[in-house]
Amino acid sequence: MTQTVHPVAAVEAVRWSPEGALRIIDQRRLPGEVVELDLRTTAEVAEAIRTLAVRGAGLLGVTAAMALAQAAALAADREPSADGRADTDRVMGAVRAAAATLRATRPTAANLGWALDRMLARVTSAAESLEVPAVEPTAAEIVAALQAEADAVLAEDRAMCLAIGEHGAALLHHGMRILTHGNSGALATGGLGTALAPIYVAHARGVVLRVYAGETRPLLQGARLTSWELTQAGVPVTLLADSAAASLMESGHVDMVLVGADRIAANGDVASKIGTLALAVLAHHHRIPFIVAAPRTTIDPRTETGADIPIEQRAPDEVLSIGGARVGAEGVAVHNPAFDVTPAALVTHYITDSGIEHAPFRLDVSCVKIPPPA
Amino acid sequence: MTQTVHPVAAVEAVRWSPEGALRIIDQRRLPGEVVELDLRTTAEVAEAIRTLAVRGAGLLGVTAAMALAQAAALAADREPSADGRADTDRVMGAVRAAAATLRATRPTAANLGWALDRMLARVTSAAESLEVPAVEPTAAEIVAALQAEADAVLAEDRAMCLAIGEHGAALLHHGMRILTHGNSGALATGGLGTALAPIYVAHARGVVLRVYAGETRPLLQGARLTSWELTQAGVPVTLLADSAAASLMESGHVDMVLVGADRIAANGDVASKIGTLALAVLAHHHRIPFIVAAPRTTIDPRTETGADIPIEQRAPDEVLSIGGARVGAEGVAVHNPAFDVTPAALVTHYITDSGIEHAPFRLDVSCVKIPPPA
Repeated sequence: MTQTVHPVAAVEAVRWSPEGALRIIDQRRLPGEVVELDLRTTAEVAEAIRTLAVRGAGLLGVTAAMALAQAAALAADREPSADGRADTDRVMGAVRAAAATLRATRPTAANLGWALDRMLARVTSAAESLEVPAVEPTAAEIVAALQAEADAVLAEDRAMCLAIGEHGAALLHHGMRILTHGNSGALATGGLGTALAPIYVAHARGVVLRVYAGETRPLLQGARLTSWELTQAGVPVTLLADSAAASLMESGHVDMVLVGADRIAANGDVASKIGTLALAVLAHHHRIPFIVAAPRTTIDPRTETGADIPIEQRAPDEVLSIGGARVGAEGVAVHNPAFDVTPAALVTHYITDSGIEHAPFRLDVSCVKIPPPA
Repeated sequence: MTQTVHPVAAVEAVRWSPEGALRIIDQRRLPGEVVELDLRTTAEVAEAIRTLAVRGAGLLGVTAAMALAQAAALAADREPSADGRADTDRVMGAVRAAAATLRATRPTAANLGWALDRMLARVTSAAESLEVPAVEPTAAEIVAALQAEADAVLAEDRAMCLAIGEHGAALLHHGMRILTHGNSGALATGGLGTALAPIYVAHARGVVLRVYAGETRPLLQGARLTSWELTQAGVPVTLLADSAAASLMESGHVDMVLVGADRIAANGDVASKIGTLALAVLAHHHRIPFIVAAPRTTIDPRTETGADIPIEQRAPDEVLSIGGARVGAEGVAVHNPAFDVTPAALVTHYITDSGIEHAPFRLDVSCVKIPPPA
């Protein structure tokens, strides 16, 4: 599964360094400084995830998978012994410990947990499910299996992004002005991103676009990340306060709203970054297409409607303080939901890796991945 | 014209100090620090206006009027001479110089220019329009006239705010949850404010309300000023990112949107703080009343529709940097309009000092103040 002839984002949020470390772009320091960090241990990866140096659903899955492969390789390298069984046990112990450490960093990040489970399943089946102990894999085989599985997770994430990009690019034409929100780009995945993937694909084909990026308060992912990665790729981008989107639409400067999704209910309701619902209502009012781009795995057929999606309230301090400076009054209450839910009726199309789709989404086990019950 | 028995805001944005200085709340340092500054010279007042220590249409008018009275008093005090004519000339010269200095601080602030013109007209008529030079006023009479006129400007501003408050309070009832935007409160006027005036009046009558304050990017007037002044007055207030208003409405937590206005066209279109249009569209979509509160002088009968209102683009740095930290990428374009225009069709009512009104506004010289041509 090679992607070499396809368009790539100008930035790679994670990759292997020549020495086998996880080389990441430190997203905490963007856009002021572009710093790559080489994460050499599980503890360093866990710290990077905890402090949001690495974030984004797809990227967390890829990073976790690579971190487990790294943990196995480190354990296999360090203390080779004459006893193959002891080596296998040591490596498996290190992998399990690493998985527990990584899982604890962001307990609600579904994709991170999913990637860890997939990696563990690969080596658990190799090491434990066989009935004949004599064919137990060696430490080297475990390392190789995890390396291959991490490569597959990354390749699949890239392929998923590319598929979204190619399906979505069909909707874009020369001169379009596209409003996006949050960061659903290369910094959030192992590949081209989700909402930004069609833009990268069209841009690579010479289609001239302009992207309007809402800054996305409170955490400013639009300002800090989206405006930066698009600029790196040479895509013209204009930044605005979230509340300025309305007059931009009213004055006829927006041809499409294109956003990502955190979870899509079976009826098509979309949980996404706070502020997405406002753009959906505004787009509807101004008769502008409102498009959601997401991997098909984001569709959760067990969630009937958006009303069943719990909305996390985040820390008041995200609104009360900016860059350490207090901007809200002492004693004031804060409403700071992480997400909002856009009703399916406001969504024009869904772009997934399967194509351009419409709600409702019927349960189809051949293409919908059903996560195991919690 | 006394207002002593009426509700007052918990904060007075400007007043006379016992020594005759202009005592202001330094709005640059809110909400972190509450610092009162005594401005003792025209230069100090001009600096405070230029650096936004004092802002808000009504408040700029009141402050400019008080500053001219102060300039006259200082000039009269300093060099009394035996020659009354020389004293008069010196005081008038000082007043004219002060007016020029103040006018240059914020050339587009209409209310500031209006207040200066009104003050100058008062003493010009006294000093120059008389045909008999013998009755030329003394320096002391000029000082007294300007002091009286400044007091009148302040009293009228307070009365206007109070009238808006009393008319608007009739729309508020126990338990209402009101979403506002920007700062149209006591910190923007000499009195109770405009959009916040009905809230203060109802609160003083024991009506329990909750105010949701949008933070109002990019300059955060909602966070820094509105949340602070309402908290000072004991009004329960909840702060939110502007983009979180949509899900708040969707979940049924908003009973009314109540905002101020910078200019209202004859057809009822409203130019107001950027972000107001988004709230109007969202309120319309969710069938929530959208109310504009403003002095009747804000209605400009010479402006037919909102399309005739020029929208100032402000500095990119307001969006690119927060508290000195760069949040947008190098090389990114910025769309940063100061205002947007809400179509009259989205406005449920207008609350002015004349009552609850509806567009269009017919030219009625008995109650519409027509500014002179520019």
